[in-house]
Amino acid sequence: MKPTSLSGENSLYLDDLQPGQRFYSRSIGISADDIMAFAAQFDPQPFHLDAQAATASIFQGLVASGWHTAALTMRLLVDGGLPIANGAIGTGGEISWPRPTRPGDILSVESEILEVRASRSKPDRGIVTVKSETRNQRGESVQSMIAKLLVLRRA
Amino acid sequence: MKPTSLSGENSLYLDDLQPGQRFYSRSIGISADDIMAFAAQFDPQPFHLDAQAATASIFQGLVASGWHTAALTMRLLVDGGLPIANGAIGTGGEISWPRPTRPGDILSVESEILEVRASRSKPDRGIVTVKSETRNQRGESVQSMIAKLLVLRRA
Repeated sequence: MKPTSLSGENSLYLDDLQPGQRFYSRSIGISADDIMAFAAQFDPQPFHLDAQAATASIFQGLVASGWHTAALTMRLLVDGGLPIANGAIGTGGEISWPRPTRPGDILSVESEILEVRASRSKPDRGIVTVKSETRNQRGESVQSMIAKLLVLRRA
Repeated sequence: MKPTSLSGENSLYLDDLQPGQRFYSRSIGISADDIMAFAAQFDPQPFHLDAQAATASIFQGLVASGWHTAALTMRLLVDGGLPIANGAIGTGGEISWPRPTRPGDILSVESEILEVRASRSKPDRGIVTVKSETRNQRGESVQSMIAKLLVLRRA
């Protein structure tokens, strides 16, 4: 699917955004090796590191760290999934992982603009609230995020 | 500082946790190379990738991806910062980055138990709400997170 409200524009400013606009990322795969490499560095727990040990865990198999799912989501947003002119600069948000990402999954992200608010004190910028849903190849949500982004106005 | 409410215990169950308990992680450093390596894989934006380009950005210098700060926070929690018996299994939460992590920063995490709630449907587990504050070497907050964790009861 293509963005519903935009055509060709690749560098959006606050002035270009409005609630209801949707954006779609490319997709990216994740392997068992990817999962274990990320976990070794950032989240060394048995269910992220060792397929054998993971079968005895609450997940009944190897799963990616939620932070790995979050990092891949960011990669997809930066690679065209959210074409903001000054980049995807988040100040924070809410995140949930309804189900884990597993080896062999192929992830993509659908984003929807929820709110656009110009700054009262800084006339060159504003805050945009975006909901980004990360889904696997079966369309199941593996991450739901509502983020606040700092977005510049058109000069 | 040491945990205020615990002594020696290293594998905590739901039954061992109560609001107000605090836990303190070890610390971890982050270099410019670390920042750029993470960014190349997960968040390839100029202000995370290139010290020169970053000087012209809103950050006025190289900064770590917020997801890098989040991933390092997780590493600190797993490495004893939050000694839960079944591991740190988050279902989601709120996250904010009051200021960026920069090259040479040394991060540590202080966590406080906010709420402990046994599951009504699954008697072997519950949900614990934890606030984890990640600070740099000057005590400034670089990440504030309120997470919901799945925690097992003592068998």
